[in-house]
Amino acid sequence: MATYEIMNSYREKYANLVNWFILTEVMRGAPEKVYEAASHLIKAGGKRVRPFIVMAMAKALGGWEAEKASLPIAAGVEIFHNFTLIHDDIMDKDEFRRGVPTTHVVYGVDFAILAGDLAFALSYKSMELAKVYGLPPHILARSYETLTEAAVRVSEGQAYDMMFEKMESVSYHDYLKMIYLKTGALIEASARLGALVASAYNSEVKANHIEAAGEYGRFVGISFQIRDDILGVFGDPKITGKPRYNDLRRGKKTLLVLYAYDHAETDEEKGLLREVLRGRVHDEESLRRAAEIIAKTGALAYAEQMAMSLMRNALQVLDDLPVVDSEAKTALAELARFVVEREK
Amino acid sequence: MATYEIMNSYREKYANLVNWFILTEVMRGAPEKVYEAASHLIKAGGKRVRPFIVMAMAKALGGWEAEKASLPIAAGVEIFHNFTLIHDDIMDKDEFRRGVPTTHVVYGVDFAILAGDLAFALSYKSMELAKVYGLPPHILARSYETLTEAAVRVSEGQAYDMMFEKMESVSYHDYLKMIYLKTGALIEASARLGALVASAYNSEVKANHIEAAGEYGRFVGISFQIRDDILGVFGDPKITGKPRYNDLRRGKKTLLVLYAYDHAETDEEKGLLREVLRGRVHDEESLRRAAEIIAKTGALAYAEQMAMSLMRNALQVLDDLPVVDSEAKTALAELARFVVEREK
Repeated sequence: MATYEIMNSYREKYANLVNWFILTEVMRGAPEKVYEAASHLIKAGGKRVRPFIVMAMAKALGGWEAEKASLPIAAGVEIFHNFTLIHDDIMDKDEFRRGVPTTHVVYGVDFAILAGDLAFALSYKSMELAKVYGLPPHILARSYETLTEAAVRVSEGQAYDMMFEKMESVSYHDYLKMIYLKTGALIEASARLGALVASAYNSEVKANHIEAAGEYGRFVGISFQIRDDILGVFGDPKITGKPRYNDLRRGKKTLLVLYAYDHAETDEEKGLLREVLRGRVHDEESLRRAAEIIAKTGALAYAEQMAMSLMRNALQVLDDLPVVDSEAKTALAELARFVVEREK
Repeated sequence: MATYEIMNSYREKYANLVNWFILTEVMRGAPEKVYEAASHLIKAGGKRVRPFIVMAMAKALGGWEAEKASLPIAAGVEIFHNFTLIHDDIMDKDEFRRGVPTTHVVYGVDFAILAGDLAFALSYKSMELAKVYGLPPHILARSYETLTEAAVRVSEGQAYDMMFEKMESVSYHDYLKMIYLKTGALIEASARLGALVASAYNSEVKANHIEAAGEYGRFVGISFQIRDDILGVFGDPKITGKPRYNDLRRGKKTLLVLYAYDHAETDEEKGLLREVLRGRVHDEESLRRAAEIIAKTGALAYAEQMAMSLMRNALQVLDDLPVVDSEAKTALAELARFVVEREK
């Protein structure tokens, strides 16, 4: 397995910048309590993958000036991501995230709804500060629109996710579409925003490159989620830190289970997977049997191949971009590999 | 009392346009259910005061081209307003609005949170369509920023409102600030947006005029709320359609009660008003006595004078604007009078 040294050093550097920017430049105001609630999860940490993609893409295609101007845009994406977490935790009734009680547990549901709304507004406000960082106004206008497009898609994805919970089964094509909307669209937007900022500093970066950068993000986002699904069934609980078979136990409609259900050969196999999809299978022995069937139907291989294929597409796209900073490009390539190779 | 013929005919015309635009151009997509939930309250009606202000101001200062280009901006403001209603109804546990069950009653709280989030995103999406209506990009970018500023303020205002509920009393200065943020800021933004659009079509409209138009909106917004407070205590229930003393019974901290509490002369008066502010007074006789004290302390006169003074300021501001369409200006002047003269 490869190391991810450059990615990790970039990620740490950008995380520090983004944390500073968000907490001192954007999320301050009155009444203090609502700003505290809105920044509660941000203060608890997080991997900051999205701002990393924005800033590394800006640097890769536009150099240091673009990297600098992209900070308020990267921070805006991270604030938006955290707004979705605040509201998702309410909807999913999740009580812990990043090792701390979720926002609605600390501040109550009503105040958490409001804190999320404020964070949503502040994601645009953060981007506006890119003016001070030298970003031209017409690029800024398109940045707002890229965020808006992602915001609409994320809401649509969350709606599908909630509707799928009440259905017995969905096609894995529908599942992939939902995952794209809910997770992929914002990562796609992150990469696109980085390239958009770069286009202000490198005239080689054309509209088709901004599109292509978005594809890189889409490939990374979807393969990330597929790897998540694989680790949920076949990962080592000691490494992932999550109980094995958790997704199966909760009847989550992941690519693995949906594909396996479509391709199961015997009535016994199909019957067990149907019960899994209904969230009715809880004993360890049956869950182990379900995992066996998932491997046997080729669902595991299918998911692994799809993730690998998405990764290769992501790397291919990177190679076709007008790169001016090869180190930043390497960081983005390492990320594409990391998301499908990681064990946790 | 004056008639409001021109205002009413403009309001009806703009309401029809905005309804059509929102429902056919903006709030359509998949999954259908979340778009239906997001547009549920919009379909139920509403006065459409905010889009009226946007479009009438655009026409008054910029003529018919500005009026036309302002439609997607006006629709965006109305969509944003409806997003706040969806979430406010959840927080306030209100079950009816505009004669229909509120969004969370029909779709459940979780789905209503999500529908509100989608509506928030769609308010920016609506504005983006102004490109097709000929609005120059730099004006559009500033329109997004005006909406963002209002969105931050509305969230801050709602936070103060929720925090005030748990306090025994607040100063009436704090109350006015809360009302400005929660209600005034979006009406201010509406007027500013109309002037901003007009500035693309009338070179006489300068930055200071856009500011001044915003002041008109702020004066109208705050005087609207003050009149609401007055009607809540002294209005005729047969005309307002709301039970008399409702605000007093619920312990709502309105300008009237707060001012009266500060200016009450005897211990008996102060004691009764303190209990009213705590939401502990429910019998008709004591409520009537509280209303008497409110009149006696000068709180009613103070509120009426403040509303009248705000109206005169609003009219004064209109007179100093570079108007190209006097009929649209008359519609805006009628609105300023209407909000403080209305009996319901």
